[in-house]
Parts: sequence; structure tokens; C-alpha cells
Amino acid sequence: MISWKNLDELEAFKKLSGMADKVKLTEVMAGENGAERVGKYCIPMAEGLLYNFAAKKVDDDVLALMEELASEAQLADKFEELYNGGIVNTGEKRLVLHHLQRGQLGKDVIADGVNKREFYLTQQKNIAEFSEKVHAGEIVNEKGEKFNTVVQIGIGGSDLGPRALYIALENWARKNNTLKMQAKFISNVDPDDATAILNSIDVSRSLFVLVSKSGTTLETLTNESFVKAAMEKEGLDPAKHMLAVTSNASPLANNKGYLAAFYMDDYIGGRYSATSAVGGAVLSLAFGPDVFAQILDGAAAEDKLASGRDLMKNPDMLDALIGVFERNVLGYEATAVLPYSQAMARFPAHLQQLDMESNGKSVNRFGDYINYKTGPLIFGEPGTNGQHSFYQLLHQGTNIIPLQFMGFKKSQLENDVCIQETTSQQKLCANVAAQIMAFACGKKGESNNKTFCGERPSSIIIGDQLNPAALGAILAHFENKVMFQGFVWNINSFDQEGVQLGKILATNVLKHETDGALKAYSDLLNI
Amino acid sequence: MISWKNLDELEAFKKLSGMADKVKLTEVMAGENGAERVGKYCIPMAEGLLYNFAAKKVDDDVLALMEELASEAQLADKFEELYNGGIVNTGEKRLVLHHLQRGQLGKDVIADGVNKREFYLTQQKNIAEFSEKVHAGEIVNEKGEKFNTVVQIGIGGSDLGPRALYIALENWARKNNTLKMQAKFISNVDPDDATAILNSIDVSRSLFVLVSKSGTTLETLTNESFVKAAMEKEGLDPAKHMLAVTSNASPLANNKGYLAAFYMDDYIGGRYSATSAVGGAVLSLAFGPDVFAQILDGAAAEDKLASGRDLMKNPDMLDALIGVFERNVLGYEATAVLPYSQAMARFPAHLQQLDMESNGKSVNRFGDYINYKTGPLIFGEPGTNGQHSFYQLLHQGTNIIPLQFMGFKKSQLENDVCIQETTSQQKLCANVAAQIMAFACGKKGESNNKTFCGERPSSIIIGDQLNPAALGAILAHFENKVMFQGFVWNINSFDQEGVQLGKILATNVLKHETDGALKAYSDLLNI
Repeated sequence: MISWKNLDELEAFKKLSGMADKVKLTEVMAGENGAERVGKYCIPMAEGLLYNFAAKKVDDDVLALMEELASEAQLADKFEELYNGGIVNTGEKRLVLHHLQRGQLGKDVIADGVNKREFYLTQQKNIAEFSEKVHAGEIVNEKGEKFNTVVQIGIGGSDLGPRALYIALENWARKNNTLKMQAKFISNVDPDDATAILNSIDVSRSLFVLVSKSGTTLETLTNESFVKAAMEKEGLDPAKHMLAVTSNASPLANNKGYLAAFYMDDYIGGRYSATSAVGGAVLSLAFGPDVFAQILDGAAAEDKLASGRDLMKNPDMLDALIGVFERNVLGYEATAVLPYSQAMARFPAHLQQLDMESNGKSVNRFGDYINYKTGPLIFGEPGTNGQHSFYQLLHQGTNIIPLQFMGFKKSQLENDVCIQETTSQQKLCANVAAQIMAFACGKKGESNNKTFCGERPSSIIIGDQLNPAALGAILAHFENKVMFQGFVWNINSFDQEGVQLGKILATNVLKHETDGALKAYSDLLNI
Repeated sequence: MISWKNLDELEAFKKLSGMADKVKLTEVMAGENGAERVGKYCIPMAEGLLYNFAAKKVDDDVLALMEELASEAQLADKFEELYNGGIVNTGEKRLVLHHLQRGQLGKDVIADGVNKREFYLTQQKNIAEFSEKVHAGEIVNEKGEKFNTVVQIGIGGSDLGPRALYIALENWARKNNTLKMQAKFISNVDPDDATAILNSIDVSRSLFVLVSKSGTTLETLTNESFVKAAMEKEGLDPAKHMLAVTSNASPLANNKGYLAAFYMDDYIGGRYSATSAVGGAVLSLAFGPDVFAQILDGAAAEDKLASGRDLMKNPDMLDALIGVFERNVLGYEATAVLPYSQAMARFPAHLQQLDMESNGKSVNRFGDYINYKTGPLIFGEPGTNGQHSFYQLLHQGTNIIPLQFMGFKKSQLENDVCIQETTSQQKLCANVAAQIMAFACGKKGESNNKTFCGERPSSIIIGDQLNPAALGAILAHFENKVMFQGFVWNINSFDQEGVQLGKILATNVLKHETDGALKAYSDLLNI
């Protein structure tokens, strides 16, 4: 029987709260003990990836208490309930089925009279068939020309995840001869965003994927009209260029204005939709359906690990608990995501949504205010760039910010130069190794100004090369981490009521139904 | 006589510390009083911009104490000392002269036997002449063809500022027929970064601007070799394509390997160098020297405001003190930068470096540890995109994060559609107005989950259109804000000792001179 308790009611958490000063990184990471620790606190993720947490403030005692906490909070049971189709999104009374998009983890899930795994597979099949026809030149534009560009029109989860994945694999696909079409993204309601993208492509040879679950998102519908107006100006028929990804109850479904429609449902939240039709359409068109299938396989393999009950073999659950320890015992407010890979440039922005929108909550799943901190602030940039930017504060600032590094042994394009006996890729990897140690152990300098206190905890995900399967596994790792943290904090990670008020007030402004300060700001902005 | 005291020694700060609960935004921003406040707490910046701080937790009493603090901390005197050539960067014993690049605020500054204003003007003139020759086809490639691309090779301050400014003005320049050449940027030592950029351009028609003050930055020199190898493979002569921006003591100066060299000096920190030759070369080549001059004029006009002694007419100093109040009295840890302009997409990344590298310090200017918090974490994305991402946490999370909005009445490309009686630009502006009020006043919902507590403070910079002069003013505003905060915190905002240790350890890894945990990580990463 599952019971949903607040974190501060759990016995294991009370014990864990006494462990803030247990581990000093400057001590445990020094010397040969440090080397041993790097080997010991390192567990496999899917697809050959490693999750290494040697530079976190844990030891066997702390980890034992985390195991108690995982057990007392019933994390594995809750995940099982979720993937078997329990109503875990209590606010909106919805199932949470993003895992089912990429594999059958548990029982069949029947909802609305439909086997949901079959529903998702059907969408994948439809997308794959459509994409292959586009690539083969069977679906073409009005002049019979092949399409060379796919443009995603969406915002939030319909933008950040798919965009991050596209950027992560664009060079890999080019190198592996599987870049079928370039992808572009229009998200912002700022008219300069759509105009600039339209100016940069051949609209007559472009497919546009309109992504809106409800078919009512202000930005997305506005940008659709924007794009259609541009097409009509060029004498193009939008119905020959527009695809819809939407729920089958939306006005976009079964609508002759679209060349094709692919469906999602209410059980996939926007920020968890990169592996649904939301990411599937644009990524299958850009890279081919096989590449998208590899992303799904990587994600499914990581999900399988996440379903395990042994904390020390479950990197997603362990990462989650280390994060809770850092947030609620050590008192850290933020986490930096630092991939040493230019291809991962927009992955921190995706994680920022995934984490902050899921767990930026102050009430528990029953609607009661809670007395502890929940989701941290998430930010990040790729290394080594960040080293020359905000790392100063990370090393010597007055706040400690835990770090999530990523590093890959091989580059994607495998084009490199050897300078002073090392390649650029080796320099990149040397920097991430060096940073972990500089943050953990610090160094006494000739003055306080040149002294590094260390005690800045980090973990690193290490992979061979950033390919579709590894990327899928990394994506799922963080989705699962965020989910487990939501369970520990006893919050609903799957709604986002905090975005509603702004929408309502913006509508009032546009209708000129405002007074007081809101009217004053509207006047200043000439609305 | 200037005296440098820690913040917690100042009487005005002790008084200000009692003001945490003085202003409730849910009260003062409601009704017609709120409207009055929006009009009253709004002061001019340069170039027609407004700095509106009505939604900050201040009132006339708090502002009066801030005036006391500004006076007691001698902020205006310290700025005057700085721009007149005092040694304010005490760590490195250097002058701090970035203001002098764009105007003569005070006395002549003679250093190293040179009038520094003249030195900077000479560099600007040299860059302008060179750029005009390139645009006129007087300086051409080996085949006599015009150059069509300029590639900046630099990292940190040599990348983030110039890149943010280029992206901010690319569409504006296109619309105003002053986009002379496209600009690209190579920064990361990740070999995929350089390879992807080289694959996307016609190298034979590209100029490369190598930016390194010392001429020794690992990433930049590696990427230079990378680019030169690619040129040689195509039978091109690097000396016909490479420019250097460097100090006149570096190995890159007066070097026949470069088509031209433009100089900077030790008195301009990397993160303050966007208005020096570091930004000047790439931006003058991309947009023409006139556009770069307009950026400088906007920055100079804002600097002039910043030199004023009346706090209520000095938006940069006021913004700084509000930030200190939020950090040290209200206890907030971070600030979100949220421009409602897609063109400003990378401006938050520039501010992230500017602020976190300048003020992420734990020792005062004398090298003593201090007992209060300094620079906050800075992050941000353009709106409306962020609304569909991390705003959930900003509205309903367990931490309050102050917000820095920006909005412009007109788009840059002035191509828009009217849907449901409003343009996209109006929708964009309506959203930022709505968000300010949603954050400040909140709203009671039918359940706690749908309730917004408000009390989230924000300010907004409002402009007519994002053009070069406005952009220069905004850039200088934040540079000056960060500088004043550094004065208040009594820290040295102009060094960055916190980036050194990582560099040393990375060099050790590459030389295989490591043991313990560092060797273990190096082995895991196959170095």
C-alpha cells in the first residue's frame, strides 16, 4: 500500500539531516583514497554511460540512509504505480505515461478504451511512414520538389526538448550521413523570431510542424498565422506544407488544413514530450525514423534501470536523492548543468524547464503548503565556455552551487588537430577532470584572493560518444531524477498551475480590460 | 578622501537591514495607488530608455536609506576615481578604463606614457578604416574576391559580449541595410565547435579575428591552429585571412602572420571589452563602423548618467543598490534576466559572465574574508519562451528570485500580423506587463495549488526599439550596476583569480603529471 507523506515526516530524512558535516571533500578526495573513491562511487547508466558521484558529499553511511529514505518514501513502488497507469498527476487527475512511449515497463495501460502503448506505437509508425515518403520524394511540394527543411512551431515543451535533441545530434547525423533535412524552430511570439527564420529558409521547400496539444496556445497559433500569411504571399498552399501534432480532441485534429496530423494525449506533459510525437515528427523528418528509434531505445534502457529497487544500481534514483540531500540537508539553492560538449549547448535549457516547471512547487500533492525547499534553480552552459564566464562565482563566490558535469571521450565529427601532443578533445576532457578536482579539493594560495576553499560537490556522466542512444539515456535519466525528487518532496511534478495567471492577465491587457498598475504598464509599453 | 569599508560596517546598511518587511507588493501595487507608483518609480536611462522599479520592494523611506548608503559608501567618488585612472583593480594593480573607450568622462588618463583615450580612439579609427576597405573590396582574398564572413575566435569576454551584441543587432542591421558581412563565433575547445562553423562557411571568403589579450589562451590558440590547418588544406594563406586583437606586448602583435592587428590593453577586463577592439573589430566588420560608433555613443550616454550624484537620476547606481538590498537584506540568492525580445537571446549569458565573474568573490579588496553575501547567480532566457519553461518555479517555487525584465515597443524587422485585433509585438508586450503584475500581486485561487502568493519583485527596462544606441546604453547600465555593487560589497570586481586553479590542473592532466583522484578521472575519460 502506497502512502504519500511529506519529506519532513520521514524517519530516514531526520537521520539524514544529521549528516551535513559527515563528508569533507577536501579530505576524502585527496591522495590515493580519492582515486579509490572515483572507482567505487561510479555506477552504470544505460548505453555504456557512467554516473560518477565520487565528488559528492556522501559516504557509505550517508548512502545507507539514502537507501532507507528511498525505501521509506516507497520510490520504486511509486514509479511502478506510475508506469502501470496509476493517477499520479493528482492535480489534473491524469495518468503519466511518458515512459510508455518508449517501452513496456509494466502492465498494459488501458485508458479511454485504448491500449496506450499501441496508441503511441501507432503514432511512431505513422510518423516513420510519413517521414520516409518525404525523404523518398513521394510527398513533395506543389512544384514536385523535395522538401529540404522542417520547421517546428511550438513553445515550452514543444520547443526546448526537441530543439535540444536536434542540436545535440545535428553534427552526429551529418557525420553519419543521416541528416535528411535541416530543422528550424519558431517559438517566441516576438514577430522577429518567425520573420528571421522565414528569411533564412526556402519556404516553398519547407514543412512546418505545428505543435499544440490543446490547439489553443497563443504563441503557437499566432506563429502559425504568421507562417501561413508568408506562404500565401508566395502563392503557396499551407495545406501542402503544414503538419499538426496535437491531441485528437483539438481543433487541429482531422482538419483538412494539414497535410498530416500525429497525435499526443493528456498523459504526456509538454516537458516530458520529447520522446512523443512532439519530438518524433521533427526528429524523424530531420534525421530519419531510425535515429529517433535509437533515442527511444536509449531512453527505454535507462527507464528500465530506474525501475530497479537497488539504489546502488539505479543511477536516476541515486542522483535524485543526492539532489534532495543537497537541497534539504546542505541547503544549496541551485544546480549548474555543465556538459563538456558544444552539441549539448541547449540541453541545460531543456533541463531548466524539465526540473523547474516540474518541481518548482510550494504545496504537496494534497494541496497543503509544505515546510521545506523543493526544486532548485537550474542553469548551465557548455564547458569549456562556462569556465571563462561564471565559474569564478562557482569557485570563490559566497554560495555553494552543486555541479552536474557531462563528458564524452570522443567528439561527434571526429575531426581534430594535435597541438602540443594533445587533441582538442583531450583538452576538453582534461578540463572537466581538472574542474571536478579544483571544485572538490581547492587549494591554498599565496593570499586569500588566490585561495580555493573546495568543498564544491559535483557528479559527472561519462560517455564514449554523444550518439542518439546515449542522448536518449541522458534525457530519461534527468526525467526520472526529477520524478523521483517529486516523490520525495511529495509534490505533483506533472502539473504547472503557476503559468496560468500570467496568461489570463495578458489576455486582459490585449482586450484593454485592465486598470491600476497593469494599465499603467500597458500604457508605458504602448499596447 | 575615499575610504573602503565593508558593507556591514556602514551605518546606512544597518538601518536598511531593518526594512525587509517595509513594503508589501500585494498592497502597494494594488488599485490606483499601484498605477501612481508605476508612474513615480520610473527614471530615464540614456537613449530614451526607462528604468521602472515600481515592482521592487522599495518606498520613499527605503530609497532615502539607499541614498544614505550611496553617500556613505562614496559610490560616486569611487566611480570618479575609477574613470580618472585610479588603481581600482587592486588585486592586479591595474587601472579600469572601459568607460574611456567610449567617452571622456573625467580627466585625461595617462598610463605607460600614453594618453589612453587617444590610444582607444586610434584603435577604433584603425578598425574603421580596415573595415571600410574590406566592405569596399579594397582588401580581398587571394582570388580578389570580397570577404563575406567574419569569424571571431575567442572565449569568455572575447566571445559572450560580442556574440550577444551581434545577435541583438543582426536583424536590425538587415532591416536597415547595414549588414555588411555575417559573423560567426568559435569559442569552445570542443573540436566539434570549430568544425561545425568551418563547415557552415566559405573559408576562402572569411576573415578570422583571433582575440586573446595575452596571446596564450588555450582554447583560442588551439582553435587558431584548427582554423589554420583547415585553410592550409584548402591551399589558402592564413596570413591573408587572420586578424589579431591582442595587447601590444603579446606574441600576436606586430606579427607577419596576421593581415592586421588591433590592440587592447591590461586596463580593459575581458568581460568589459565588448566596446573595445574585442567587440569593435567583429562588429565593425559585420555592421560597419558607424553602427559600432552608435553602440559606443549609447554606452557613453549611460556612463554619463552613472556619474551623477543624485541617486534618483542615476538608474545604474539605483539598480545596484536595489540589488544589494535584495541580496543582503531580503536574502535572495539569484536574479533572472528576462528580455522580451528574441534578439536579446544571448544577452543573459553575457550578463551571467559580467556579473558572476565580477562579483562572485568572498574576500574584500584587501584580501580579507567577508561576512555577507556578494554577487548573485544570474540566469535567463527571452520571454515569452521562459514563461513556458521555468516561470512555474518563479511564481510558485519555494525560493523568491527577483526579476529583471526588458521590453521594447517596436520590433526590429517591423514585419507583423494582426490576429484577433492585436499584433505579435503587442502580444509580446502584453505578456511582460502581465507577468510583472502576476509576480507582484499574485492571486488567491480556488485551491492552494492554483494560488499565487505574489511578492516577487521585478524591474523593467523599457525602450522604443532595440537599436545600436539603446543596446549600448543597456550594456553600460549593467556594467555600471555591477561596478557599483562591487564598491558596496568592498570587493575587487575586476580580477578573476577563481579561474586559475582549473587551468593549472588541466595542464597537469595533459602532461600526465597527476595522481590520485585526478588521475582516476583522467583515466575514465581516456585522456
